[in-house]
Amino acid sequence: MINASIIGGTGYAGSELTRLLHAHPSVNLNSIVSKSFAGQPFSSLYANFHSILEDKCCSGLNIDQLAAENDIIFTALPHGASSSITSQLYNKGVKVIDLSGDFRYNDINLYKEWYGDVHVAPQLLETSVYGLSELHKEKVSHASLVGNPGCYTTCSILGLAPAVKSKLIDPSSIIIDAKSGATGAGRSPSQALHFCEVNENVKAYKVASHRHTSEIEQELSLLAEKNITLLFTPHLLPSKRGILATIYTTLNQPLSAGDIEDLYETFYADAPFVSILKDGKLPEVKHVNGSNNCYIGFTVDSRTNRLIIVSTIDNLIKGAAGQAIQNMNLMFGLDETTGLNRVAWYL
Amino acid sequence: MINASIIGGTGYAGSELTRLLHAHPSVNLNSIVSKSFAGQPFSSLYANFHSILEDKCCSGLNIDQLAAENDIIFTALPHGASSSITSQLYNKGVKVIDLSGDFRYNDINLYKEWYGDVHVAPQLLETSVYGLSELHKEKVSHASLVGNPGCYTTCSILGLAPAVKSKLIDPSSIIIDAKSGATGAGRSPSQALHFCEVNENVKAYKVASHRHTSEIEQELSLLAEKNITLLFTPHLLPSKRGILATIYTTLNQPLSAGDIEDLYETFYADAPFVSILKDGKLPEVKHVNGSNNCYIGFTVDSRTNRLIIVSTIDNLIKGAAGQAIQNMNLMFGLDETTGLNRVAWYL
Amino acid sequence: MINASIIGGTGYAGSELTRLLHAHPSVNLNSIVSKSFAGQPFSSLYANFHSILEDKCCSGLNIDQLAAENDIIFTALPHGASSSITSQLYNKGVKVIDLSGDFRYNDINLYKEWYGDVHVAPQLLETSVYGLSELHKEKVSHASLVGNPGCYTTCSILGLAPAVKSKLIDPSSIIIDAKSGATGAGRSPSQALHFCEVNENVKAYKVASHRHTSEIEQELSLLAEKNITLLFTPHLLPSKRGILATIYTTLNQPLSAGDIEDLYETFYADAPFVSILKDGKLPEVKHVNGSNNCYIGFTVDSRTNRLIIVSTIDNLIKGAAGQAIQNMNLMFGLDETTGLNRVAWYL
Amino acid sequence: MINASIIGGTGYAGSELTRLLHAHPSVNLNSIVSKSFAGQPFSSLYANFHSILEDKCCSGLNIDQLAAENDIIFTALPHGASSSITSQLYNKGVKVIDLSGDFRYNDINLYKEWYGDVHVAPQLLETSVYGLSELHKEKVSHASLVGNPGCYTTCSILGLAPAVKSKLIDPSSIIIDAKSGATGAGRSPSQALHFCEVNENVKAYKVASHRHTSEIEQELSLLAEKNITLLFTPHLLPSKRGILATIYTTLNQPLSAGDIEDLYETFYADAPFVSILKDGKLPEVKHVNGSNNCYIGFTVDSRTNRLIIVSTIDNLIKGAAGQAIQNMNLMFGLDETTGLNRVAWYL
Repeated sequence: MINASIIGGTGYAGSELTRLLHAHPSVNLNSIVSKSFAGQPFSSLYANFHSILEDKCCSGLNIDQLAAENDIIFTALPHGASSSITSQLYNKGVKVIDLSGDFRYNDINLYKEWYGDVHVAPQLLETSVYGLSELHKEKVSHASLVGNPGCYTTCSILGLAPAVKSKLIDPSSIIIDAKSGATGAGRSPSQALHFCEVNENVKAYKVASHRHTSEIEQELSLLAEKNITLLFTPHLLPSKRGILATIYTTLNQPLSAGDIEDLYETFYADAPFVSILKDGKLPEVKHVNGSNNCYIGFTVDSRTNRLIIVSTIDNLIKGAAGQAIQNMNLMFGLDETTGLNRVAWYL
Repeated sequence: MINASIIGGTGYAGSELTRLLHAHPSVNLNSIVSKSFAGQPFSSLYANFHSILEDKCCSGLNIDQLAAENDIIFTALPHGASSSITSQLYNKGVKVIDLSGDFRYNDINLYKEWYGDVHVAPQLLETSVYGLSELHKEKVSHASLVGNPGCYTTCSILGLAPAVKSKLIDPSSIIIDAKSGATGAGRSPSQALHFCEVNENVKAYKVASHRHTSEIEQELSLLAEKNITLLFTPHLLPSKRGILATIYTTLNQPLSAGDIEDLYETFYADAPFVSILKDGKLPEVKHVNGSNNCYIGFTVDSRTNRLIIVSTIDNLIKGAAGQAIQNMNLMFGLDETTGLNRVAWYL
Repeated sequence: MINASIIGGTGYAGSELTRLLHAHPSVNLNSIVSKSFAGQPFSSLYANFHSILEDKCCSGLNIDQLAAENDIIFTALPHGASSSITSQLYNKGVKVIDLSGDFRYNDINLYKEWYGDVHVAPQLLETSVYGLSELHKEKVSHASLVGNPGCYTTCSILGLAPAVKSKLIDPSSIIIDAKSGATGAGRSPSQALHFCEVNENVKAYKVASHRHTSEIEQELSLLAEKNITLLFTPHLLPSKRGILATIYTTLNQPLSAGDIEDLYETFYADAPFVSILKDGKLPEVKHVNGSNNCYIGFTVDSRTNRLIIVSTIDNLIKGAAGQAIQNMNLMFGLDETTGLNRVAWYL
Repeated sequence: MINASIIGGTGYAGSELTRLLHAHPSVNLNSIVSKSFAGQPFSSLYANFHSILEDKCCSGLNIDQLAAENDIIFTALPHGASSSITSQLYNKGVKVIDLSGDFRYNDINLYKEWYGDVHVAPQLLETSVYGLSELHKEKVSHASLVGNPGCYTTCSILGLAPAVKSKLIDPSSIIIDAKSGATGAGRSPSQALHFCEVNENVKAYKVASHRHTSEIEQELSLLAEKNITLLFTPHLLPSKRGILATIYTTLNQPLSAGDIEDLYETFYADAPFVSILKDGKLPEVKHVNGSNNCYIGFTVDSRTNRLIIVSTIDNLIKGAAGQAIQNMNLMFGLDETTGLNRVAWYL
């Protein structure tokens, strides 16, 4: 059994990690660490665990003990706060999967540009592996420190990777219009997340300036072997879960949807969580919510010579907790799908 | 024109007051007072006013000026905070309609029992009139200080008043199961009002202990001419607006739904905002949301000898801002429906 | 492995059965029978299965083959239609769990009174077992034909059984005010289930006349050893899943919430899916949605001598597909929780 | 008073027309014509009218009588069905505002290409005026037959018109990603509009092939004085009302957001329903829902040299019924805002 703990387990991503790890057949979930709720039963925050983890309390942060008792630690903390704790854990020899933005970049300058913070462990960026499992499976399987990708990022990169890699499209044409449920904004209450401000509403935010832009550019540039600059716009939906990214690109040459489907099928032949829809079918978030799946569909618009890619994931699972577990599976030599082969909810 | 101002205009009830007063043909809306947002444009909080009140800023609190410049002040403040300001305004001779719980009781002990606070102006409880317009039309029309009823209260009392008054039902049998949209809990963000905690959820809260219980009992006891103790349970719905109260009572004698409809029709013959549904039709919140209307329908259950009354209002309009304006209309000799004759939205 | 098939697998309950059976470690899911969609891929209706059952098509109805190839059949058909097919299957010796109302009654007259239909196999009512697993575990474990309870029924009976059995409450006082998500009304589109008619709305329907009333009365009467007549009122919420029943009863003697919690704990000591909340905590549907759990909490109102019980389940799982699988587990000697030990979603 | 009637008044656009016309100070609402519901009270479909139009029944279709008794008829019928009735009415000399797609095109071939139907009155396309009030105010004021624009169309054209007219942007770069509430799909129930299929979901549909594409292209081509081909993608949101269009364009030269705001302000100086947001503020649908307003905001992305325009309207009001009344006001010499100066709901 893999001994695992979560630091920052009381946020939404942390609660999903707890739910999924609890059901993982090869994991012993040790501690759920929370500064704010140490000593309080985890089920007092998430009563869905009442019947199962009724007596399990959140723990305080004890780096030495966590390092000694665990094979892996998931850190689900705000960026900045994460790099300090993660580097301490790493230095004590425990594997870490970090869900913040702190270990997602190859280049510290990119981090500084988009996060604007001092990073306390820039030297670890060379060591850390970007945990988009489908793109970096081999590296992840040997990693001791994984920077788990953002939710918008995962959805966008998976939708674009084959097209960019095979130079089907003009990279400068990429526009990503993404729509997300409110869990993506986290558990902390705020005016903007008040039920009455979100329901029956939709809005764009951080247009062309969301941090995930830089992550997407980093990974697509690697695939394209040249620098890509793109436009990313997120929207907040009146729903809880799920991201749908509608991606607009210009084709380098006329291609049919069928050609593109074949190319994507080949690219993702070994990716058990990615499904390519055929015959013009397009994915919806209810097709993936509750699962670790990513569904991708296509429309070719011959009028404007554009390829429109629609990609969808559950932001809390493939976009956070599920992908973290997928990475853990790879790191410990388990089948990638262990504990994650759940059918989406639909309803 | 009636010169009117709002103190506490940036809460949800205050924003609805602003919206309705702005459209009132006999009102000049002077100031929107807000401690937290003084000097900021009202439309920076409620961008729906951008095109109309773009340059109107919230004002600081100046009691003397407010009293001098207005014929009426609406106070939409938390209880406790309200009684102090309201009494100062009253003493300066300006009419006040208070939307808090501070001036709803005839008996100061009831206030203390249910609100647990010291009341700074208990002497005004004799002067203030309980503004459930349909029950106290005459008194309201001569009032200088009105305690505007609560939202659950209005919905429940209107549903029960004719039955209690005419002794159709056993008062000790009354059970009110009320369901409300989240605007009823106000604008301040909190964990419990986070979109992700409310959507796809429903919960009961403050079962048998909600403060509105005491208001309902006060008014029904007056109608019954004896003390009534009843059970009131509110629920939070995954919606923004509207209250539906399902009211369970035991009939004192077998009656048909038709008999009851007739009796209610008669009772509300002069109440332009109350509609009695016939032939077993039951109201839904979408029938009243956006309007000052209250719809009431009935089922008689001969198996258990019970009368079930379903009553519904828009909590922000008939349950707050609309009823306040209805009271203002009465106080200034206007037709009760002035500025309020809007058809509900349905969609 | 248990060979299992579903008849009527394309409704919402059927799709949940498919989802849960697919993940059941001891079940081989054979056929998904659907008259309307025979020959079409199941994933063309429920694209959440795209990645897993992509090529599985719905089958036509072949009673002989189904009986020959399966150890158990789940019938998820409209009442009336179900009794005919179920009785044919039963006569061929295959075990059947029927999710319709056709085999839930001990007394054929009760069926006729509430369903108004001719029943084609009334003789089977003696054989069939009412599958409320917690109450009839022993009988279910020996059953060949199970009438799986209704959703409102399960939620209500579990909330009331201990109180009725131990005569804590006056049975004539029972009022059940239940709130359900729209999946309870099934998959077929209708005006009343159009998104725009349901969202931001709430309504009562079939007040005091819903068929589940009779099921609840049957089971509580058995527990009370006398006839119980009660009042049941369902409501439609602007949500997809989950039932919350707020149950009003009059106590036969003063009791504390603690006393009641203890009594319920004892009653449900062997019920792994029922959780009794302590210290006045009340359950919400997000605590159980996605799981086979039932959570129950209490408030004692000393002012009116009433006990208010709040009970909640996921209508599609504990109220339909999950309970059916729980019954199957019992019928085949498996641990009751096999394939069902999932933590609820919360988000 | 203007005598007005509605044909097809029982759809969602028709019900909003009824609501707004009923409150219009210069209109006498004569008949609400409905083939399906003739003889039935309008309030049996829309109980929000119960208190006001309780006894008003839907009428059958009598062209002669309608033409004789009305100054204007609003036709809210499916395309195809509309052209026949509209042309008969027009020939009898009554003014008509048609809410279908039948009279929106200058070129009959465009209609045939996108609607694929035979048009029974192609000769009227020369006479009819495209009722996007802000662009064709003068023509509308002299029109006898107005083709009222589509909802997506209105939102998109208003967002793009000034930029296209003044050649700020490369027209071939235009991509419109629009998100709409479900009322846009109309009142008829269908699987895709079932509450449980829409809530907590989002999907793209008719990507690059929605009929409104052609309307947008027609109008923008007129403004640009050359043919424009663009990409339009609609999405269905889990909400009832409101459209948000996120519009991506490439700038012909570097410009600041301030420059663009000024240009839009000037273009819409005489457009009382259009508001230009400043300082990077972006509109949300809750800012306009319930009103006839269109709010427009901007982001300039210097990294990609793109201008992102966000435009939002209430699809049922500015996108249908409200704009129809705005056109009526113009046709009868009334102030454009008569009966339409409502503040949006926000909540």
